[in-house]
Amino acid sequence: MKVMVIGAGGTVGRAIVDELGRDHDIIRVGKTRGDVQADLTDDASVQQLFTQTGKVDAIISATGSVHFGPLSEMTSAQFNQGLQDKLMGQVRLVLIGQHYLNRGGSFTLTTGILTQHPIRTGVNATAVNAALEGFVLAAANELPGQRINAVSPTVLTEALDKYGPFFPGFESAAASRVALAYRRSLEGIDNGKVYRVW
Amino acid sequence: MKVMVIGAGGTVGRAIVDELGRDHDIIRVGKTRGDVQADLTDDASVQQLFTQTGKVDAIISATGSVHFGPLSEMTSAQFNQGLQDKLMGQVRLVLIGQHYLNRGGSFTLTTGILTQHPIRTGVNATAVNAALEGFVLAAANELPGQRINAVSPTVLTEALDKYGPFFPGFESAAASRVALAYRRSLEGIDNGKVYRVW
Repeated sequence: MKVMVIGAGGTVGRAIVDELGRDHDIIRVGKTRGDVQADLTDDASVQQLFTQTGKVDAIISATGSVHFGPLSEMTSAQFNQGLQDKLMGQVRLVLIGQHYLNRGGSFTLTTGILTQHPIRTGVNATAVNAALEGFVLAAANELPGQRINAVSPTVLTEALDKYGPFFPGFESAAASRVALAYRRSLEGIDNGKVYRVW
Repeated sequence: MKVMVIGAGGTVGRAIVDELGRDHDIIRVGKTRGDVQADLTDDASVQQLFTQTGKVDAIISATGSVHFGPLSEMTSAQFNQGLQDKLMGQVRLVLIGQHYLNRGGSFTLTTGILTQHPIRTGVNATAVNAALEGFVLAAANELPGQRINAVSPTVLTEALDKYGPFFPGFESAAASRVALAYRRSLEGIDNGKVYRVW
């Protein structure tokens, strides 16, 4: 299959490419790296991405940032930043990408364990991830002939040095294990499902 | 208690005012009506609202609109409209309002049955409501001395004429019944809870 992986240069993205590259043709997409560049926060850029690649069999997104900070100091602008990046970015990918995804094709988005298990300073992350899981649940009914799922990883083992203190007592998962969930979404039959890797 | 009700002129808002007005001092807030006017999509307007009212014992929001339309035709701008109105509006109310809510006070936001039960053309509504439920779950840990909950109504009996066809087979609830959940949030001990009136 012709599989587009957005965020292909990230820790999860690289693991997805390693996992799926054995059996599929991968189009690596990054903001500044990869085979093709795209900025998911910009309609024109996402439109341009699909004009360049043409139709694909699967669209996988492993990208998006959110705002971390104490609620007591958080501004609307900071909260909206996470909405515009990780949430609107992946939603935009589906809104535009649905017209470039072949029949039988699948979307796989990325949420995270914070949806159900908030951490200190993570209010924006929980809201954004929850919105994405809601989006997947609802969109699954409105993409005839296409499927959509999401992968919800716990903290990555590879990121423990940097993020470990924010996830006290959380079990981590190696990116290679998280990547398996994207294969389940891609090659399986599920629709509207969130794969929790935790 | 001094209870601020935003969206006090709406069907749910009026029922909340009827229910709580018997025991509490209500400040009715609306976009164009009520005791005080405020536009939740605007930081300055919300700041101005609290400058006018001073500190309160409870903040209840029963307001916010989302985009309804088929996913196949939905644009990023339309999706973002719902994020900015029902989601960001209520989040903004908490981000600013936390500094004007007395110790022991509570926030009660409004989500909806579409969080868990999507309907045709309701992708934006499901995502927005899910984000709000995530926000409540996470914010409950970061509002020391304050509580935050949400009420998730099914379709209102009063709105069946207008919205009934979008909710085939859904049981409706009278606004007066939905209003009870706001009292539970206000006078109870719950924190981080979503009251499903369905």
